[in-house]
Amino acid sequence: MNLKQGDAVHKSNDKSRLRLWLKLLKSSNLIEDQLRRFFRDKHSTTLPRFDVMAALSRYPSGLKMSEISGLLRVSNGNVTGIVDRLNSEGLVQRVSVPGDRRAHLVILTSEGEKMFEHLVGEHTTWINEKLGGISLEEVKGFIKRLDYLNKTLEDEK
Amino acid sequence: MNLKQGDAVHKSNDKSRLRLWLKLLKSSNLIEDQLRRFFRDKHSTTLPRFDVMAALSRYPSGLKMSEISGLLRVSNGNVTGIVDRLNSEGLVQRVSVPGDRRAHLVILTSEGEKMFEHLVGEHTTWINEKLGGISLEEVKGFIKRLDYLNKTLEDEK
Repeated sequence: MNLKQGDAVHKSNDKSRLRLWLKLLKSSNLIEDQLRRFFRDKHSTTLPRFDVMAALSRYPSGLKMSEISGLLRVSNGNVTGIVDRLNSEGLVQRVSVPGDRRAHLVILTSEGEKMFEHLVGEHTTWINEKLGGISLEEVKGFIKRLDYLNKTLEDEK
Repeated sequence: MNLKQGDAVHKSNDKSRLRLWLKLLKSSNLIEDQLRRFFRDKHSTTLPRFDVMAALSRYPSGLKMSEISGLLRVSNGNVTGIVDRLNSEGLVQRVSVPGDRRAHLVILTSEGEKMFEHLVGEHTTWINEKLGGISLEEVKGFIKRLDYLNKTLEDEK
């Protein structure tokens, strides 16, 4: 075995990239767990509920139920429950689709938008406190690496 | 408002750390989706099944069913299905707990260990191919940042 072959074997068995993936998964789970607790304890709300409002806020002209569950990768049944609840609280409303009497779109009400903006603000403040030990300069470098990683992963799809 | 107060206001509303978190979540979802496909298409297996084997491999003296689902954050019902299947394929076995006739522990059989080692090897090769565009030097810097982030998040728990 010459040096070059040795290198290749070493490279394909190297565990660093596997460790990177495991650590990424760990970060993501840690943040998600803590965020879930934050929403529950401080705002009596849930992460899926926040995610539904976030999706609706990105599409002000409304989304079908199936589009919401597609965007969020949660089941239609769960989305139905969440939207029913938000609707009864006046945060979203269902509007009919012109030309299709059976279909409807869900949109945020203005009260829903206000509530969502409030939660985004709280969420931002919370993350800034939580990750305050990481300087904005450092955050920038981190984001650059994640952008590169995400681009690599999307290109390979 | 003096400069110092201005800085603080700016800092707490800054969206970079929020972006960092969203990008982390995206990476983790992208890798998980692709890994799920890899296991399904190339090895006719699933990520939860791999995770159960990984947990058992870390505890060679065996785990109770409730311990497996605790470690993996999946429901007891799902773990039961996976363990039944692995058992029928000879990859795990149930052993009784001395002094407690109703309890049992699940352990990997030697065939199960071999299969798990094989999957870890395939997994490692796959990640090295997938993330080959990120040099090992770069991976090291990335891991250092994630370690710091994870430590920060765990300290705040």
